[in-house]
Amino acid sequence: MQRDWGSRDQAFIDMTARIRRRLVALANGNSDHACVLVQGSGTFAVEATLGTLLSRRTSKLLILINGAYGRRIARICEKLGQPFALYETAENTPPDAAHLATLLRQDGYITHVAAVHCETTSGILNPLREIADIVADANRSLIVDAMSTFGAIPIDLATLRADAVIASANKCLEGVPGVGFALLEKNALARAEGNSVSLSLDLHDQYTYMEKTGQWRFTPPTHVLAALDQALTELAAEGGVKARGERYANNCRVLVDGLTGLGFETFIPAALQAPIIVTVRMPANSRFNFQNLYASLNKLGIVLYPGAVSQEKSFRIGCIGQVFENDMTRTLSVIGDILKDMGIPREGLRPAG
Amino acid sequence: MQRDWGSRDQAFIDMTARIRRRLVALANGNSDHACVLVQGSGTFAVEATLGTLLSRRTSKLLILINGAYGRRIARICEKLGQPFALYETAENTPPDAAHLATLLRQDGYITHVAAVHCETTSGILNPLREIADIVADANRSLIVDAMSTFGAIPIDLATLRADAVIASANKCLEGVPGVGFALLEKNALARAEGNSVSLSLDLHDQYTYMEKTGQWRFTPPTHVLAALDQALTELAAEGGVKARGERYANNCRVLVDGLTGLGFETFIPAALQAPIIVTVRMPANSRFNFQNLYASLNKLGIVLYPGAVSQEKSFRIGCIGQVFENDMTRTLSVIGDILKDMGIPREGLRPAG
Repeated sequence: MQRDWGSRDQAFIDMTARIRRRLVALANGNSDHACVLVQGSGTFAVEATLGTLLSRRTSKLLILINGAYGRRIARICEKLGQPFALYETAENTPPDAAHLATLLRQDGYITHVAAVHCETTSGILNPLREIADIVADANRSLIVDAMSTFGAIPIDLATLRADAVIASANKCLEGVPGVGFALLEKNALARAEGNSVSLSLDLHDQYTYMEKTGQWRFTPPTHVLAALDQALTELAAEGGVKARGERYANNCRVLVDGLTGLGFETFIPAALQAPIIVTVRMPANSRFNFQNLYASLNKLGIVLYPGAVSQEKSFRIGCIGQVFENDMTRTLSVIGDILKDMGIPREGLRPAG
Repeated sequence: MQRDWGSRDQAFIDMTARIRRRLVALANGNSDHACVLVQGSGTFAVEATLGTLLSRRTSKLLILINGAYGRRIARICEKLGQPFALYETAENTPPDAAHLATLLRQDGYITHVAAVHCETTSGILNPLREIADIVADANRSLIVDAMSTFGAIPIDLATLRADAVIASANKCLEGVPGVGFALLEKNALARAEGNSVSLSLDLHDQYTYMEKTGQWRFTPPTHVLAALDQALTELAAEGGVKARGERYANNCRVLVDGLTGLGFETFIPAALQAPIIVTVRMPANSRFNFQNLYASLNKLGIVLYPGAVSQEKSFRIGCIGQVFENDMTRTLSVIGDILKDMGIPREGLRPAG
């Protein structure tokens, strides 16, 4: 990131091609798949994919919702004027496969289904393989928001039938924010010409130009891409998706066990907990002061997330990034000390809900 | 850029606010103006501004075109389904003020005018003040693409009547690519609610959320913003827009004089040449090989741009960035040596056109 790359220069063209190849390979894609990079945050990549693959005249999207990112897909469709339907479950409940099959049987207008792999809202892992099979068996197309799982939870495009898998540089890939991407099934992409009402977010146009020239249509975030290239090298050095997933799973296990040991309750049942982010139910005890906990940890360089689920009060702790078991044990130990200072015993951490 | 900023953390919220304040101040804006940042390249910021300020039902945009960036505005409108009209002049010719006034008188449906301050296609500086006065006198609204001038050529929002001035971090501000922005007249922004068909590129929504929370709606390119913050500090240390503009103007003068001395001809007349980028007419001499010139300079870390004007063959040399008079004289000296090696005398560099 300390070098100014010329975006039309061969070295940068090579870097872009290398990143695209490596991202396809990470999902076990093949010559049927293309990686299309897009400037901006993950939401830009989601909007670009929906706006490119869906036709406002002939497509209808069924959105599986159990959190803020599913709801965001619906909001994007509203703005675009894209017809859609919703199948919403509680924030700690995955969609039911049989019910999904019924919905697809009942509404012949539905052409596509959108699913969020891990809802960062809560940390729930949705059953991607099951959803993909039902969508494919019903001859519909699947669009996956894999923003917070890509690079740590395996996605096997050789056997998982999906038209699009969307992610960004700055979650499990451990790059810096500023670029997103979609892994697209090439036939689906070929059929998408002319769908997009956006120039900047037209992935068909982005793909066609990049295939022809090796270059970006519009100024790329060169430093962000250099960081992503390096992050992909470091991912390979760690042992790839499997090894990174295991590190995060260990982080998550240590964290959840430690929190439970302290007396906290987690929001997502263990079987559905993605090793990405953990939602902790807010204790009802009036002595527990989340702002103080947040501030005390922040001073030590440990940053919590505020809660995001709508059903009850909560806070969140992430398991991803350059974070290891000793970071988790250190965090738990500090939290233990803070609880002691607040004068709260183990049984004092029961949540209100 | 070597630090991971938490995008919801107070230090980053403060940085975002500081950048926005400083960008408004650079254009001599006041409490009537708001800076809205947007992830992505400059084109993302242009599309976001057009999509936010214009209504597809009630607005009509007159686009002043003398290069690729004017044409790109038209392409954005086409994709958005936004009604527009064109006033196109040759790539070395600015729009005529009297003719612009006539066009506005003749077409009462036109509500907005879009102008490109400097067309990087050629390096022509369009007469912004003159255009702005005519647009304001006709009670229409002006949208300025100041991508390649902002930070080096003064724009005075206290007296220049414009609803929007759009730029990005990575031209004259000397930041890194990955973020753009618009300086918007607050009343125009307030009227724009609900216009955008994009969630990611809705500047009204971006503004409202940021004013309320101090935070970005969607993950910001934190490292890119840290670089912009530092770049703005360095711009102030250099002496602000005036001093930077003078450095670039000197670069440009030395470059054009040197090129002319070697026998090259420039495409844009001196009076219309912006001190940003210089278009050089391609010599007709069969001994002149641009690819060789490009490659030889590239090896020395000097990167030329291919030509972009459509009227004739050309190449371009930039005057902006961390580039000083000695870089210009060194470049000219190397070009002189390469011409000698090619066996081309001064009079051998006459262009074909």
